[in-house]
Amino acid sequence: MPQSPSNPYEQYLDQNSANYEPLSPLTFLERAAFVYPQKTAVVHGDVRRNWKETYQRCKQLASALSKRGVEVGDTVSVLAPNIPEHFEAHFGIPMSGAVLNSINTRLDAETVAFILQHAETKVLITEREFSEVVSKALKMVEKKPLVIDIDDPSYLDDPNYNGGELIGSMTYEQLLDEGDSDYDWQRPDDEWRAISLNYTSGTTGNPKGVVYHHRGAYLNAISNVLSWDMGQHPTYLWTLPMFHCNGWCFPWSIAASVGTNVCLRHVRAEPIYKLIKSEQVNHFCGAPIVLNMLNGASAELKQGINHQVKVMTAGAAPPAAVIQGMEEMGFKVTHVYGLTETYGPSVICAWQDEWNDSDAEQKARLKARQGVRAPMLEGLMVADPTTLAPVPKDGETIGEIFMRGNLVMKGYLKNPSTTDESFTGGWFHSGDLAVWHEDGYVEIKDRSKDVIISGGENISSIEVEDVLYRHPQIQEAAVVARPDDKWGETPCAFVTLVEGAELTEQDVIEFCRNNMARFKVPKTVVFGGLPKTSTGKIQKFVLRSQAKDLD
Amino acid sequence: MPQSPSNPYEQYLDQNSANYEPLSPLTFLERAAFVYPQKTAVVHGDVRRNWKETYQRCKQLASALSKRGVEVGDTVSVLAPNIPEHFEAHFGIPMSGAVLNSINTRLDAETVAFILQHAETKVLITEREFSEVVSKALKMVEKKPLVIDIDDPSYLDDPNYNGGELIGSMTYEQLLDEGDSDYDWQRPDDEWRAISLNYTSGTTGNPKGVVYHHRGAYLNAISNVLSWDMGQHPTYLWTLPMFHCNGWCFPWSIAASVGTNVCLRHVRAEPIYKLIKSEQVNHFCGAPIVLNMLNGASAELKQGINHQVKVMTAGAAPPAAVIQGMEEMGFKVTHVYGLTETYGPSVICAWQDEWNDSDAEQKARLKARQGVRAPMLEGLMVADPTTLAPVPKDGETIGEIFMRGNLVMKGYLKNPSTTDESFTGGWFHSGDLAVWHEDGYVEIKDRSKDVIISGGENISSIEVEDVLYRHPQIQEAAVVARPDDKWGETPCAFVTLVEGAELTEQDVIEFCRNNMARFKVPKTVVFGGLPKTSTGKIQKFVLRSQAKDLD
Repeated sequence: MPQSPSNPYEQYLDQNSANYEPLSPLTFLERAAFVYPQKTAVVHGDVRRNWKETYQRCKQLASALSKRGVEVGDTVSVLAPNIPEHFEAHFGIPMSGAVLNSINTRLDAETVAFILQHAETKVLITEREFSEVVSKALKMVEKKPLVIDIDDPSYLDDPNYNGGELIGSMTYEQLLDEGDSDYDWQRPDDEWRAISLNYTSGTTGNPKGVVYHHRGAYLNAISNVLSWDMGQHPTYLWTLPMFHCNGWCFPWSIAASVGTNVCLRHVRAEPIYKLIKSEQVNHFCGAPIVLNMLNGASAELKQGINHQVKVMTAGAAPPAAVIQGMEEMGFKVTHVYGLTETYGPSVICAWQDEWNDSDAEQKARLKARQGVRAPMLEGLMVADPTTLAPVPKDGETIGEIFMRGNLVMKGYLKNPSTTDESFTGGWFHSGDLAVWHEDGYVEIKDRSKDVIISGGENISSIEVEDVLYRHPQIQEAAVVARPDDKWGETPCAFVTLVEGAELTEQDVIEFCRNNMARFKVPKTVVFGGLPKTSTGKIQKFVLRSQAKDLD
Repeated sequence: MPQSPSNPYEQYLDQNSANYEPLSPLTFLERAAFVYPQKTAVVHGDVRRNWKETYQRCKQLASALSKRGVEVGDTVSVLAPNIPEHFEAHFGIPMSGAVLNSINTRLDAETVAFILQHAETKVLITEREFSEVVSKALKMVEKKPLVIDIDDPSYLDDPNYNGGELIGSMTYEQLLDEGDSDYDWQRPDDEWRAISLNYTSGTTGNPKGVVYHHRGAYLNAISNVLSWDMGQHPTYLWTLPMFHCNGWCFPWSIAASVGTNVCLRHVRAEPIYKLIKSEQVNHFCGAPIVLNMLNGASAELKQGINHQVKVMTAGAAPPAAVIQGMEEMGFKVTHVYGLTETYGPSVICAWQDEWNDSDAEQKARLKARQGVRAPMLEGLMVADPTTLAPVPKDGETIGEIFMRGNLVMKGYLKNPSTTDESFTGGWFHSGDLAVWHEDGYVEIKDRSKDVIISGGENISSIEVEDVLYRHPQIQEAAVVARPDDKWGETPCAFVTLVEGAELTEQDVIEFCRNNMARFKVPKTVVFGGLPKTSTGKIQKFVLRSQAKDLD
C-alpha cells in the first residue's frame, strides 16, 4: 500500500532509551522482586525463598559467571531436576549475557557429550543425581567446561533419589558466593539476542539446537498466562521438566504473574498430591501419562483437595477416561500443542462455552484436538506441504501444520540448511500432519515421517492405532511402516496387552478388518513393551528399525 | 560487556516472515473473530454484534477508507461517544494503514479546528450529537476532510441526547457498504508505525499530539489485562471515554481477552447500574468523580448486584469515603496512574495481601498512592528533575516522576523540540511531583507547575488542599500560586462549600494555621465554583490567572 511521501508520523519520532526497551522476560523477575519482594517465589522441601532473595541469587549467579569469564553469546549448560537452582538458571544465566542450555536429564552420556560439544559449553552446572552420566560425557568432550555441582540438601525424602558424587570444581553455592548481589546485570541490547538453547531429539539422528530469543520468551511467557487464565500469584507445581522447552517458558510465566514455584525432584503421585494439598497448588503441566498416573492413584491420596486445580497437558491427546477422571476430582484439563521450535505450547484447544452441554465422551473428543493459535502466535494453518495452500476446513483433508509469528524459534544453532528448510515459504514446517475442522481447530493425524505408504496409498498410523486402542484387551499400541517388496510398506503393529489378556496376531488382525479399510490393516503384529523417550513419547524410530529387522 | 568475536547465536539466525511479525493489537481482533466468532463483542441498546461481525465491519471500514484514497500515515479523526462505531474505529482505521485520531467530544470548535488542521485529517467520522461544534470547526479548517456521519439509532432512551444534524457526505453505514468484508487489511510493516494520535490539552497552550505506535498499544493492552487480572471474556462497561488515551487502550485489551464491550452514550448512574445488572458487567473505569456519583446514587439503583465488579480509577486519588462506599457494594477499586504520553495507565497501586488487615482509612491511604510500574513498563522512578538522580525512598523527599520503556509514546507530532525535551536524559519527564515511599510506591504531591514557591520555600498545593478537604464544610478546594511582591508567590485557595455551609476567609485561614506549617497557609481564600476540564480535572491555569488578577 502506498505511503504518503512526507508521512509526518515517521519524522522526528525515533526510538530512544526513554520509549524503547528490548523485550526480555528478565524484566519480569526484576519487577516481581521490586513490587512483591516478600512473596514466596520458590518452595523446595524446607527451602522457601521470596522474590527478593531469588532475584539477589540470580544477580549473584550472573555476576559470578561474568567474573569467571562468561561473555555475551557463551553457553552455560544445566543438568538438574526441577529444583530452585534450575529456576534461577533461567534468569541468572541470561542476566550474565550468556545463553541457557538446559539438558534433558534422561539422555545417555554420548548424547550429553554431543550437546556439550555442539553448544561449546563454557560452564556446566550439574546436579549430583546425574554425576555418573555427566562424568562419562565430560570424558568425551574436548574443551572441558568449568563444572559446578548443585549439592541439594532437601529432596522431600524421595526414595528414588540416590545422591551421587560431587564432580565439579566447586558447588553452586560457592559460585554464588563469588558473585555480587548488587550486580548491574546484562540487559539484552536487542530483543533478538539468544536467551536459551534447547536440543530436540526428534526421533532420529543427532539432536538439533533450537535457539530462543528474549522477545519470543517474553511473549510466550505472557501467552501462557493469558491462554491458561492463570491470574496473579498462581501456585505452580513443577511436574513438567524445566529442560523441556524451558519448561514451556513457565519459569518466565511464573515471574510475570508473580506466582510461587513448587519444586519437585521426581514425578510421583504421592509428593504431587501431598504438595497440591499442603501448598494449595492450583496449576501444573504434564504429559497425559502423568495425568494417567495421578488418575490411578489411591483414593486416600486423592481425597482432601478442596480447591480448583488446572492441568495443562500436551505431547499426545489425553484419552477421554483420563480427562473424565481428572475432572471428577475437580481438575480442569487444558490441552495444548507445540514443538520445541515454537517455545513449547503455541496452539491451545480453547474451550467454547457451548461445549459444556456435551457428554463426557464428546467433550473428550473435542478436547483431544490440538486447537487454535495461542494468543501470541500470529499464524497457524494446515496446508499442502509443498504448495503451502491451506487445506479446506472439512475435518478430512490431511495437510501439514504450519506456524508463523513471534512464537517461532530464531533457528537451529550452526545449522543454516535445516533452518532454511524449516522456514521455507515463510512458515515454520512442523512436520505434523493434521486436518482442519470447520470451526478452525487443528487435529493431528500423524507425524510426516510416521505415515505409511502402502501400494501408493497413505495410511495414517494414528488412525490404525486409534482402532487398536478401542480393543478392550489392548493397553498400548504403535503402528509403523515395515518395508515390503510388493507394497513398498505395510503397517506393522506393536501392541502391549492389558494384564492377564491373551490375544493372537490373528485376533488383532481380525479386529482391525472389522473396523477399517482393508489396505490399512496391519500385516504384522508384535506383542511386548514399547520403547519410550524420557518424556513418555513412544520411540517410533526404534520400532521402525525393529520392523525392518523382522525376519 | 564484551561479546565473543564469532558469537554463533548471531549467525544464520535472522528474522524472517516465519519467525517475526511486528506486534500489533489488530491481531487480537483477528484472533477473537477466528477463535470465538459467535461470542458477543459489542452491546449497544438493541444492537448486539459478535466478534465475527465486528471483524467484518472493521475490514469493511478499512477497505472503504482505502478505496476513498486513505494511505499509510494519513489521519482519520473521530468525534463520537462510546458507541460501537467508535470501538470499530480503533481497528478499522489502522487496518487501512491510517492513524486513528479520537477527539475529545467536549472541546470547543476552535480547539477541534486546531486539531483537524494540525493532524491534517483526511477523513472525519462524527456523530450527530456533536454536529454543531463540528460544523463550526470545519468552517475554520482550510483543507476540508471527507466527513462521515454516524447516525446512531439506539441510545438507551437517554434523556440527555438531543440528536443533531447530519453534516457529512454520507453515513458511516453507507461508507461500510463501499467496503469489502474480505479485504486483505494492512498489517504494519514495522511495529514502530503510528496507530493513533491523541491530543493532550495539558492545562494551557495549544494541545500537543501524542503519537502511539502498534508495539506500545499491543503491550499496554496486555499490561491492562495482567495488572487488573481481567481474565478471559470480561464484560466491560464503557464509562471511560474512548477519546481519552484511546480509552486507556481498553478497546485493544477487550479484543485480546475476547470480552464484551457494553457501550454507553452518557455517564449517568441510572444506565450504569442498569447495565451492570442486566449485562452482568464486571469491569469498568472512571475518574473518582464517576465513582462519587455512583456512590451517591439511590439505594434502589444500587441493590440487586450479586457479582463482583472491578473498578479502575485514575486522574486523582480516590477519597477514602468513595473507596469505602464502593467496596461496601462489593466493588473492588484499583487505583492507576499515567499520562496520555504513557498510553494511559502505566503505573498501578498493586494491592499487597498484608494490607487486608488495615482499617478502612489506612486502606484508602495506601490505595490513594499512585503505585508501582505496570507489568509492561520497564522503568519508573522519582528523581531530581535536573540531575535525574533518584530521590531516597523516604516518603518525604519530593522529586519528579520519570518513566522509561515500552509504554512511553513515540513522541509529539510535528514537535521535535518538545519531544526531545520530554525525553531528556533517556527518561520521559512526567511533570508530576511525587515522593517515593520505602516500599517503592510513588505518591504524587503536585504537578511541577502547580508548586508554589513562597519566600524560597516549595509549597505543595496538594498538601494544602488535603488539609482543606478535611474541613467538614468544604466540598472542593484548589490551591494555586498568587504573585506577591514580598514573597514571590503566596498560596491562594479556591474553595467550594457544601450546601448551606457558611465560612469566612478568616475561618479557613484559621483552620489551616492549626493544621500546617505557617508558611504554607493560604494568604487568600476565594469562594465559588471551580473550573474543570471535560474529564473533570480542575483547571488550575484558569485559577492561576484569576489569582493573578485579584485586585
